[in-house]
Parts: sequence; C-alpha cells; structure tokens
Amino acid sequence: MMRRRFMGTTERAAELDAGVDETGRVDETGGARPLRGGRWHVGYTQARHGLRNYWYPALFSHEIEDGTFRTRRMLGENILFNRVDGTVLAVADSCVHHMVRLSAKPGGAESHVPGTVTCWYHGFTYDMRTGDLTGVLTQPDCPLIGRAKIASYPVAERQGVVFAWIGDDEPGPLEADVPPGFLGEDHKVVGLRRTIASNWRLGAENGFDPTHIYFHREAPIVTGTSRRMPLGLNMVPGKEPEFVSAGGRRGLVDMLRENYEPLYEAEVNGSVVKATGTHRSTTEEGSIWLPGVLKITKFLPDPEMTHFEWYVPIDEDRHDYVQMLVRPCANADEEKDFVAQYHGMWEQMFHRDGFNDQDIWARCALQEVFANEDEWSSEQLMKPDMALIHWRRLVHGHARGFQGPPRFAAPKDSVD
Amino acid sequence: MMRRRFMGTTERAAELDAGVDETGRVDETGGARPLRGGRWHVGYTQARHGLRNYWYPALFSHEIEDGTFRTRRMLGENILFNRVDGTVLAVADSCVHHMVRLSAKPGGAESHVPGTVTCWYHGFTYDMRTGDLTGVLTQPDCPLIGRAKIASYPVAERQGVVFAWIGDDEPGPLEADVPPGFLGEDHKVVGLRRTIASNWRLGAENGFDPTHIYFHREAPIVTGTSRRMPLGLNMVPGKEPEFVSAGGRRGLVDMLRENYEPLYEAEVNGSVVKATGTHRSTTEEGSIWLPGVLKITKFLPDPEMTHFEWYVPIDEDRHDYVQMLVRPCANADEEKDFVAQYHGMWEQMFHRDGFNDQDIWARCALQEVFANEDEWSSEQLMKPDMALIHWRRLVHGHARGFQGPPRFAAPKDSVD
Amino acid sequence: MMRRRFMGTTERAAELDAGVDETGRVDETGGARPLRGGRWHVGYTQARHGLRNYWYPALFSHEIEDGTFRTRRMLGENILFNRVDGTVLAVADSCVHHMVRLSAKPGGAESHVPGTVTCWYHGFTYDMRTGDLTGVLTQPDCPLIGRAKIASYPVAERQGVVFAWIGDDEPGPLEADVPPGFLGEDHKVVGLRRTIASNWRLGAENGFDPTHIYFHREAPIVTGTSRRMPLGLNMVPGKEPEFVSAGGRRGLVDMLRENYEPLYEAEVNGSVVKATGTHRSTTEEGSIWLPGVLKITKFLPDPEMTHFEWYVPIDEDRHDYVQMLVRPCANADEEKDFVAQYHGMWEQMFHRDGFNDQDIWARCALQEVFANEDEWSSEQLMKPDMALIHWRRLVHGHARGFQGPPRFAAPKDSVD
Ligand code: FES
Ligand code: FES
Ligand code: FES
Ligand SMILES: [Fe+2]
Ligand SMILES: [Fe+2]
Ligand SMILES: [Fe+2]
Repeated sequence: MMRRRFMGTTERAAELDAGVDETGRVDETGGARPLRGGRWHVGYTQARHGLRNYWYPALFSHEIEDGTFRTRRMLGENILFNRVDGTVLAVADSCVHHMVRLSAKPGGAESHVPGTVTCWYHGFTYDMRTGDLTGVLTQPDCPLIGRAKIASYPVAERQGVVFAWIGDDEPGPLEADVPPGFLGEDHKVVGLRRTIASNWRLGAENGFDPTHIYFHREAPIVTGTSRRMPLGLNMVPGKEPEFVSAGGRRGLVDMLRENYEPLYEAEVNGSVVKATGTHRSTTEEGSIWLPGVLKITKFLPDPEMTHFEWYVPIDEDRHDYVQMLVRPCANADEEKDFVAQYHGMWEQMFHRDGFNDQDIWARCALQEVFANEDEWSSEQLMKPDMALIHWRRLVHGHARGFQGPPRFAAPKDSVD
Repeated sequence: MMRRRFMGTTERAAELDAGVDETGRVDETGGARPLRGGRWHVGYTQARHGLRNYWYPALFSHEIEDGTFRTRRMLGENILFNRVDGTVLAVADSCVHHMVRLSAKPGGAESHVPGTVTCWYHGFTYDMRTGDLTGVLTQPDCPLIGRAKIASYPVAERQGVVFAWIGDDEPGPLEADVPPGFLGEDHKVVGLRRTIASNWRLGAENGFDPTHIYFHREAPIVTGTSRRMPLGLNMVPGKEPEFVSAGGRRGLVDMLRENYEPLYEAEVNGSVVKATGTHRSTTEEGSIWLPGVLKITKFLPDPEMTHFEWYVPIDEDRHDYVQMLVRPCANADEEKDFVAQYHGMWEQMFHRDGFNDQDIWARCALQEVFANEDEWSSEQLMKPDMALIHWRRLVHGHARGFQGPPRFAAPKDSVD
Repeated sequence: MMRRRFMGTTERAAELDAGVDETGRVDETGGARPLRGGRWHVGYTQARHGLRNYWYPALFSHEIEDGTFRTRRMLGENILFNRVDGTVLAVADSCVHHMVRLSAKPGGAESHVPGTVTCWYHGFTYDMRTGDLTGVLTQPDCPLIGRAKIASYPVAERQGVVFAWIGDDEPGPLEADVPPGFLGEDHKVVGLRRTIASNWRLGAENGFDPTHIYFHREAPIVTGTSRRMPLGLNMVPGKEPEFVSAGGRRGLVDMLRENYEPLYEAEVNGSVVKATGTHRSTTEEGSIWLPGVLKITKFLPDPEMTHFEWYVPIDEDRHDYVQMLVRPCANADEEKDFVAQYHGMWEQMFHRDGFNDQDIWARCALQEVFANEDEWSSEQLMKPDMALIHWRRLVHGHARGFQGPPRFAAPKDSVD
C-alpha cells in the first residue's frame, strides 16, 4: 500500500525492517559507529524535499472557517483547502487546463456551488472531494468533464488541527504519524506556526539534539526563573535513545534524565565555567517521530503540559514550524484556564522569544552550511550526537517514501 | 533576405509555406488535432526569447524628445535611441572597447556632436546612423576608427510610435508587421506601455484566447455598464480562426460573432450560473499577428475605436505591454475629442484597472507554470482552445526567425 | 613554499619566471601583441575568485578594539578576527562540529576566556592563535579535543591596518605584498573601505587604466580646482609600463608623465572638443602590484601624499575597496594636520564623491559585461590598453596561486 518514489528503496526498507523488533530496539543502533561514509547519507539526502506517504499538519482548525479557502505549500506541492459544511477538503491548487493556481486570482479561489471550486480563468469546475472535473462554465459539453481531474488530498481534522496526507496511495491511520499521547480525547491543543528559512531536517536536528541546551542557557525562560540548565551532558554508559516501532509509528525516545548525566561546570583553557540558576530541572523525555515531529515532556512547571513541534517541509529551503502545547483538560473551565495560561505566558516565554526563537536562528545558521548536501560528511561529531545519528538512520531506513523535487516553483505569496 | 537563426528552420519553413494559400487558410488547420506531441512545440519553445526579423514598437514618439537619448531592452538586446533633428536613430547600447553600456553613466549617454554618441569611459565615438566608430577622444589616431562599429537598428516612426527592426538583414516593410488598419493616414493613436513579468507568449495567449472573457465578467467596464458578457462560447460547426497571409503579413482572424455562439448560463453541480448585465454585446473580431500583436474591433461603444496591443519581449520572463487605442479622426477637433475621451475614460476603464489589468495578473499566473517550458505538453485543452493551437502553429511554422538567448544580462535599471 | 591550487600552474610559472630579469622587464612585454586568443586568458579567468598566498588588508586597526570580534569574508572565506591583549588573531569562522559560523549568533561570537572562541551551539572552544579545539563545554572529555582544529590565519598589523594571509602555507614577508613606499616608518595612513558590487579584477583594471582619466574630467576635484585634465594620452614611442620584480614583490610601473603625451583637444565628426581647466597637472606615476593594489603618486597638490587602493575579493561579484592616503609625518603635529586635512577635504573630494565614486560605478558597469568570463575575448583594444594587457599577463604569469570557488555561500550579513 505504501510506495516509495525511488527505485530500490522499498526492497531495501523491507530488508532493514527484517532486523527490527517492532517493540524494541533496532539492532543497528547497538553502539556508536563511525559516521563518515555511513550509508545513512543516501536516504538522508533523498529526504531533502520531505518524507512521502505521511500525514502532516497543514492548518489549525481556526485558520479555515466554513466556506473559505486557504492555500498551503507542503513538500513542494501547492494545495488548496476548503471547508465545506464543516469538513475540510483539499485538492491540488492547479487547474488541468493551463495549470494556473486556482487560488492565483487576487481575492483567492472561486466557488459557485459549495463543495466545488471553479478556476477563475475559464471556469473549469472541480469537486473538492474527489478533484473530478465536473463542469466547464465556458464550455458546458466539454468532453474532458468526467474524465479529467486534479489530485485530491485526504484530510483529517483532530484536536483542532487539520492534517493532510501527502502520498501516493490511500492514507494510513493518523495515529501512526503523530507522537504517542497527542490524540488523547480530553487533550486541548494550543499553538502557532511560522515559516522558517531552513530545510525541515535542520529543524528536526536542532530539536532532538540533546546538547544544544547549552545555547539556551541565557533564554529568558531560563534566566527569568533561575532555572539551572546543565552546560553539558555525559551519556550514561549503556544508555542511548531507543528506537520505537509500533502500529506503523516509528520514532526515537531519549529518556533525558536516565540517559545523560548533567554537567554544571566545565574547564576551558584553565578557567572554570559554571552554569547559573538555582532551580535544578531537567526535561524528562524528548522523542522524535517520523515524518518529523518532536515531543518534549515535563519541560514546563506543570508536568501535564507536553510540547509538540512539527517541521513540515515547504520547499527544500523552508519549513513550516508548527508548535503545539497540549494538556489534558477535565472540563471547560480547565480548558479555559489552560488557554489563558498559554496566551498569557507560554506562547511568549516558551514558543516565542522566551525560548524557541533561539532554535529558529540556529536552524538558519545550519541552513547556510547544509544547503550544500555534501557538508553532511564534513561534520566531526561527539558522543551525544548519537541521537542525531539515530535520527538520520531512522529517516534513511524507515521512511515510507521520499518526496522528489517540486513540479512548480513556489508562488511568491505562497506562505503567510 | 530573411534568415532564421537556428539550423534547419529555414528549410522547414519553406516546406510549410508550400502548402499555404497566400490569401486563405493554411491547410493544416482544417480541424482540431491532438495537441500533445504536436511538432508546434519545437518552434514555440524556440520562440521563448522572441521572434527575429520583425518591427517592434519601442517607444511612443512623445517619450523621446529631440536631442535626447532613451534606452530599451528588446528581445534581450540593449538598445540606445536618440532623436537627432527630428529623426530617431538607434544603435547597440554597448561600446566595442570594453562593451559597457553607453548609457551606463548616471545621467545617461553623452554626445559631443549631434548625431554621435561618445562612450563615457574612454571617448569612443559612434555615428548614431551607422554605428561606425568615427573617433576616439582619448586616442585620435586609433586604428580602430573607421573599422570598428556597433550594431545599428533600423527605426521607423509612424502614427506617433517609434518602431525598431530587430533582425539580421535589411528590414522589410513596416506594413507587414502591424495589423491591417493600424497605419491609416487619419488614424490617431493613444496608449501606454508597461513592463509585465511574464514571457511575451503568455501575453499573446491571454489576449487571443476567446473563452477567457469569462474572467472579465466582474471587470468594472462590464459591471459598470450592465454589459452582458457571455459566460462561455460554443464553436459554430465549420467555423474557426482563419489564417491570413498577405504582403508578408501573417496572422489569425477570429470572427467572434460568427465563429462562436455565446452562452449566458451554465449548470454546475446541479446549480445554474447565469451571466449578469442586460446590454448584450459581443466583440466583432479578434485577430493576432506576427510578431505578437492583437487587434480587437468593436469592443467599445464607439465602433470606430480599435484596440491594439503588442507583447514585446524584454527578456524571457518579461515583456513590454504596449496598449493602443486607435480611431480615425477627420480633423483636429475630432482628434482632440478622442484624446480627451481616452484620458478621461478609456485609459482607466479599458487599458488599466477597468479591464486590462486583469489580463496582467493572468499572465503572471501563467508565468508561474510556463517558466518551465515542459509544461506546454501538460495542458488539457478544449475546443475553443483551437485559437491557441492555431497561434502556436503560426509561430512554429511562419515566424521569420527565432531570437537566441541574450548576450548580456539585463541591467538593473533596464526598464522604465 | 608557495603552492598554486590548480594543476600545472606551478610548473608553468617556473617556466615563465625563467625568462624574467628580477630587476627589470619581463621579456614577453617587449611590444604590443595581439590580445585575442592570448594565453593570458587562462590565468586571468582562474583569478576570478582572487589570488592565493598573499597578504590582504582586512580591517583598519581602529575597527577592532581589544576584546572584540569582527568578521570579514575574503576570497570567499569567512574569517573571524579577535583582538586579544592588543594582538589581532584570526580563525576560520566555522565550527568543526556542524560548521556553523562561530559569529552566527545574534550579538556575535562568544568567548569565555580571552584568546579563545566558544561556539554558541554546543560549546566547542578554540584557541584563537592556533585554531586548535581546546575544550568542549558540553562534553569535557570529548576525544576531539586536541585533535580537531579550525584553520587559523596569519595576521600582521602595520601602519594602522590589519592584514590577513590567505594561503596554504607559512606566510611570506608583508613587504612583498604591498607597494614600495607603503611601509615607511613615519608614514601615517588614513582611509576607508567599502563593498563594491564587482569582481576585484574590474577594480584593478579601472584603476590602472591610463586613459580612463577622460571620464573623470567633470569630477568635482577637477572642475572645482580648474585642473586641466588631458582628454587623452598618446604613448611615447618606446615607452610603456614596466614590469618590476624584486624581493618577491611583482608589479607594473607606469611613469605617466614620461610614457604618455597628453592630448588637450580632439576632433569628433568635424567638431573640436577641448579639455577645460587652466592648471595643467598630470600624475607622476601609477603602479599596480600583486595581489591587486594600486599606488598613485603626486596626484594631489601636496606631492608627499600618496594614494593606495586595494581591491580585496569578497566573492566573485564583490570586492572590498580599501582606499588609503599616506603621508610621511615628522611628528605628532604634522600627523594631526594630515588627519585633519584628510577628513576635512580629501576624504570627500578624492576618496568619495569628488573623484573615486566615479570609479565605483565604472566597475559596476564593467561587471554587467564581465560577469560572463567569455567577454574578455570580445574587446577591441587600443594602444594605451597595453597597460591592461600587461596587468592581465602579470596575473596570468606571476600570481602565486589562484583561489577556487567558495565552500560556503556568503552569509546574508557578511559585509558591513
Ligand atoms: S486555466 Fe483553469 S479553466 Fe483555463
Ligand atoms: S569602454 Fe567605451 S570607450 Fe572604453
Ligand atoms: S556546531 Fe559548534 S559546537 Fe556544535
Ligand atoms: Fe531548542
Ligand atoms: Fe483579456
Ligand atoms: Fe579613476
């Protein structure tokens, strides 16, 4: 059912999967192995344009009101979303006639009948559910009607988020493509998203990197709360991120408190550098999941708040950074309180300039380097970078498919 | 006399011409033929940089006063214009010495003696009529004098418009390169020109496309006058745009009232969409001519006003959109009245945001697609697109020559 | 000791050098030879990214205070400068870990201990003197410590200017890479530098070109002082720029008053054009030196003021234009007076819009042409262009090495 786009990868994937215990570790991660020349380069470079045959968050539900259209560019594909009678539908934003974007008209896509979209140029009209060409306003008996169609994208809306399936075949379960714990019935999701000028993989690498906490040491969320952030991390012998594969979901779980011993001071050229702050705190667990979503538990004072962040490819040099904070809420009052806390505090102090904005410029700094794919083989890594190696191997060996280069260049106004 | 730039096209053109009745139809347009794989792709793709060996409008006469210089980039060539004793002359805007633009100096090109241009850098001086290097101010006995030269461009000024010949040999008659009816003795021409960010062919395709009237249905010139625009057009059996070839002029004439039956309502997914407005009106005739100029008759209330529009290539992704409204005027009073009507009404309501501005963004939407030349073979066309097929075949089979890629990149300030 | 980057050039250089009298002329410059097809094209095209194994001015001393970092992009390399206890040190601005720029963090590079730089991302710490990785804050026992290193750049600070050696091996003497007379003990240097949007070679060609004085004839420094600038120059028979090679320094000296006869009028198409101004003045001497620095003597009223200008490659389409005015000063008062004269008069009237700003737009006009390396063979040169031919041959035959294309693209904020 799931196909890969490049010759040979399906067979290779099956071969690799043969050595995997669905509930445990992948055998190949038993120890640190030399990185240079490692075969993970192949699949990781193929992943430049994103991973195919996955569900991705496209919009927050509140971004698309009933009867309205929205566009997103995802993995290099221009997609047109439309909410019809409460349900979000999606088709390729490209008319079969002359391939213009259906949304190219100033003011956006047109619809004469709900559930259809009509091309502004010559009136080719498509069913938003199927993509079928169901009418041509300028030529009612055009023989293309009923024969031509544009691609339609499966859409799932859960937890206040609109997900689109970017793939070739019928979609798999959404559960397989989101981290465990995201879809809880009583979970309330708040968050935001923005366009970041880096490849999506650099978002993932920055997020899952255990030692990059170093550069957050002066973040307002740290200094403003006297939080004692480790300067560094020593790997506990025998411990490392664990490969998890269950129900089609594949990821890596890094038990941060168990796998690493925090360092609060270090000597540099004879001088001792010490961590500041007094409130010791380490995050419980960081995990990363295909197709590129990070989960962080117990980073905030309220241990029930869990952070998720997606790196959704837009183009090879941009990704949509989708940040979410999730908390189980027993009733409407709790939910209201959580939303108020988010907008009053955590949006600014965690998701924006209090913390995550630092990650954004780190990705942009990485982009200067890794825009050239050859640079992956120039790195000189250290032990805790094992987390990154595992991530790259996960992509190489377990991605369902790799997206190819885009057909159409990005429209100038493609991202909001 | 007329040469083509690419090997083999001359022979093929002669072969194609053998089957053409100079006063009637080209035999190959007898019916709709499948587009995909059609050999018109070859010549149409070659036409990317423009058609060579034609007259093109460069400037309106009022844009270049006596004694002044103006520059235009046309078909990727930088051209320097100069009006000398009333006559406009043109040469390549590139010194033979170090090839800098003669106009590159802030303030523009220099002239010590009327009828000459002197390069600002080392004083190489050229005759504006011939392009001959007639002196070198910094080295009066330079042996290049009388030997070196820059290209000169034939110029013709008619109807208040300065035309330049972009070609290899002696120019043909201007009459052959403008639509019939343009050069009438008593015709007054008004208009404007602007730089559009699309390939010139997309201007031509948008303009000659019969069914694109659909997207003009909400233009101020339509809604503001209760004009009843058809939603669509059915081709009348046996009728289609006619190939015209006479006196070196080649074009396609589409008798819009005869060739198409207007549709004022259409059903889409069970709902009926109706055209608005009460004043029925269809345009009499649209025609398009090599090297890329459209003529529209009887579109405006005054049937004597005829619209012409040129799509003059600047680069592969820009063209100069030259819009003209022409009317025979018996005397100075009529002329004055026509000019006043144009500036008081039609410039805004027809040539700008009342109507033609819509065509401009349509071309830009097409440019997103056809910047990639391969996309010409992805279209799925309908019957009235026969007009476009004929146009593409006309270019493929009857263009005098095809321009190659530009030698010099566009200067940053190349367009007005 | 000096190596060239491209195969075969070392051998060829040795071969060419065999025919050179170290104190006199190179035998191959005995006369004007046809330019087209000349083998100088090879080396001159290789010089696109700059000449390797030379000292280049990077900063004025006052631009980098003690304890601070500054970055420069030179010949396509990102370099980090740091003044430590008075001494300027320089290393590659690229961490070995993930190759991010050490200076990429908003606010600039970090240092916990003077004489070291610590990467903002994971705390890799380098010795600014050697580039050695001396510590990793996040992983104190990382085995890379003491093994990994970033490149370090030799730095020399003389005459208030910080020079960096861009090369592969141990640096040669600074004396060999600056024009004679620059390093005088009592010489005071004033000046400025700016980023110019042209290849560095176009700066050199504009500067050393004897006949380009023509286009300075309307410069404020000329007209404002009734200076009588020649329109052109005739080469005195038997005279031409002389090749100088001594102590590793290689250059061309053009004795302007001896080698050329000034022309004060010229006839163009029957009209006589005359130079203006009454104060006859010609510059004594212009000379150009590898790796691309011009020296002009006795251009200003005070014959002791000498002008130097460097064209330091940033990228293939940008160079750092470093302008200096130098005067021997016997004591502090003379020095103070010279500095006051510079800022009160010559900075504006000579180095900026009174004169040199004209050279800047000339280079940009040349860049439009020579961005395409093929255009070097389209020129049609005249006799005094022998100076340019000699310069190109000098680069071709005597450059120590040629820089290759850059590894990293230019950071967006790379130049100030
Ligand atoms: S391009 Fe969409 S209907 Fe023609
Ligand atoms: S470049 Fe035109 S005269 Fe030298
Ligand atoms: S990238 Fe510099 S320390 Fe990691
Ligand atoms: Fe982070
Ligand atoms: Fe139109
Ligand atoms: Fe100059």
